[in-house]
Amino acid sequence: MNDRHAPSADGVRQAAEILNGAAIATPLLENEWLNARAGGRILMKAETLQHGGSFKFRGAMTRLSRLPEAERARGIIAWSSGNHAQGVARAAKLFGARAVIVMPEDAPAFKVAQVRAYGGEIVFYDRYRDDREEIARRIAAEDAMAIAPSYDHPDIIEGQGTLALETVNEAAARGLSLDAFIVCCGGGGLTSGCATILEAISPATEIFIAEPEGYDETWASIRAGRIVKADISKKTICDALATPAPGAITFEIMRRLVKGGFTLSDAEVEEALAWAFKYLKLVLEPGGAIALAAVYHRKIRAQGRTIALTLSGGNVDPGLFADILARHG
Amino acid sequence: MNDRHAPSADGVRQAAEILNGAAIATPLLENEWLNARAGGRILMKAETLQHGGSFKFRGAMTRLSRLPEAERARGIIAWSSGNHAQGVARAAKLFGARAVIVMPEDAPAFKVAQVRAYGGEIVFYDRYRDDREEIARRIAAEDAMAIAPSYDHPDIIEGQGTLALETVNEAAARGLSLDAFIVCCGGGGLTSGCATILEAISPATEIFIAEPEGYDETWASIRAGRIVKADISKKTICDALATPAPGAITFEIMRRLVKGGFTLSDAEVEEALAWAFKYLKLVLEPGGAIALAAVYHRKIRAQGRTIALTLSGGNVDPGLFADILARHG
Repeated sequence: MNDRHAPSADGVRQAAEILNGAAIATPLLENEWLNARAGGRILMKAETLQHGGSFKFRGAMTRLSRLPEAERARGIIAWSSGNHAQGVARAAKLFGARAVIVMPEDAPAFKVAQVRAYGGEIVFYDRYRDDREEIARRIAAEDAMAIAPSYDHPDIIEGQGTLALETVNEAAARGLSLDAFIVCCGGGGLTSGCATILEAISPATEIFIAEPEGYDETWASIRAGRIVKADISKKTICDALATPAPGAITFEIMRRLVKGGFTLSDAEVEEALAWAFKYLKLVLEPGGAIALAAVYHRKIRAQGRTIALTLSGGNVDPGLFADILARHG
Repeated sequence: MNDRHAPSADGVRQAAEILNGAAIATPLLENEWLNARAGGRILMKAETLQHGGSFKFRGAMTRLSRLPEAERARGIIAWSSGNHAQGVARAAKLFGARAVIVMPEDAPAFKVAQVRAYGGEIVFYDRYRDDREEIARRIAAEDAMAIAPSYDHPDIIEGQGTLALETVNEAAARGLSLDAFIVCCGGGGLTSGCATILEAISPATEIFIAEPEGYDETWASIRAGRIVKADISKKTICDALATPAPGAITFEIMRRLVKGGFTLSDAEVEEALAWAFKYLKLVLEPGGAIALAAVYHRKIRAQGRTIALTLSGGNVDPGLFADILARHG
């Protein structure tokens, strides 16, 4: 497959074969208190338990696997302040390939340490002065390295889509079909991958996205029928979802398949995160708790329905987590 | 089966049938960083994801299921400040039976609320003045209710043992056999149940216990060949493991089958708990992190070996958790 193929259900299935054994088939959790609150069955895909603490390894591994061997041997480059960086570094390590990650100088120390632990080389940039994509593309050109975009690439999209494939299969093993699927949405890699496979294997499942206040530009774009940009000067607690706009590829998929969007405030996300601490015993980062927040705050009709959602990541600064517990514990 | 039967592997297997569908077959997690640190394969049974946030539901459900229906209809009584209380209340709720829990007046508000949410009736006592067991036995006699001891009962022991049965089966599905199994140990219900089934289905597995400083009386008892009591005035962060002594039944099993004991300090447990936050994305209570602490702090030879351990519970006060993150994050 090349960079220009359209993401497809078969591509997701092939990515699942690549990931078999390399990624963790994360558990699909259910909680009796949340079910009672919602009046339905809520199935939570605990991707926070994935290698690197988020779903990002799925796409990165798929991208690396599909590179021609000679190209892969020259290494891969990505820009990311967090979860995607770890996913790319881990995938490269499995192939013994070089990974260069362009990260902001003020990236959390834990994330920097994790990228290094996976053997990734870090190039720091000043987020107020430099263009990280320009830096990355210059290095890629100089060293003839492939790029792993964080969402707008067919391999990345298909890799992330394996999450929904596993979810549908696990639900079916429990005799359940999904009425709805809610995805934590930043640039749309996870959403469009999940939507692509759901359309093929579970076409009756309604697909929703959950976005943070100030960064709900994906749902705004879908409503407008064209890409609308977020004002990236706005603050959000969901750092992993603070993307300026959906991608060109992801937008085309999402505009066709996403049925609705939910916008959650910082406070709503924090409450869901604290609830997950107490009742799920899971560590979620704010962006990873936003689909749960949509159910917890009853943004979706759940009565009598079976709804799956993504708990997409858990890479959160301990100090921030402690602060949220203090406010909502 | 009656109160006097000796715990057996067949009893554990029968308990597993009772729990099939009622308890969660919790995931067996593995983490690449811990494996690298240990130099072996570390398999962690994430019982923090069980109903009620700990393994205790297994034993409580087994006990309730085996009561004659007429007796069960009169209800069950237990004394516990935490995890066992939730397990008993949930099991009783499933049978529509009354549950009375004798809890200290100063029990954490979250645990009190959870017992009530499961429909349990709470009788408070003053932990400095009253004898909780005497209160419970008086109510049991007056209302002709059965008692669910927190560890020293064959049904409880066999119910907890299902955790090791699942662990061995899941490890086998991955092509692994267990060189060692480390259990978080308070009164020994979990340890003796796990030891009973491991002796039958995985006799080469060495069984170890992990206990907190000041409450390592089980290993002290095993070494002495008789029950030695802990000084219960000592403080420990592992409230769930602050038992005064192993039980009569659990001790006889453990003295025969437990190969060694590890004693962990509060600081060592806190460090493991903070590590689990960062790398496992799991919320553990201190007592639930102690077997992990034994591996993390290299108390056991792990090089080239496959070692299973219990992450036995996650019911921790948010304030305490935040404090630990502040100290070790």
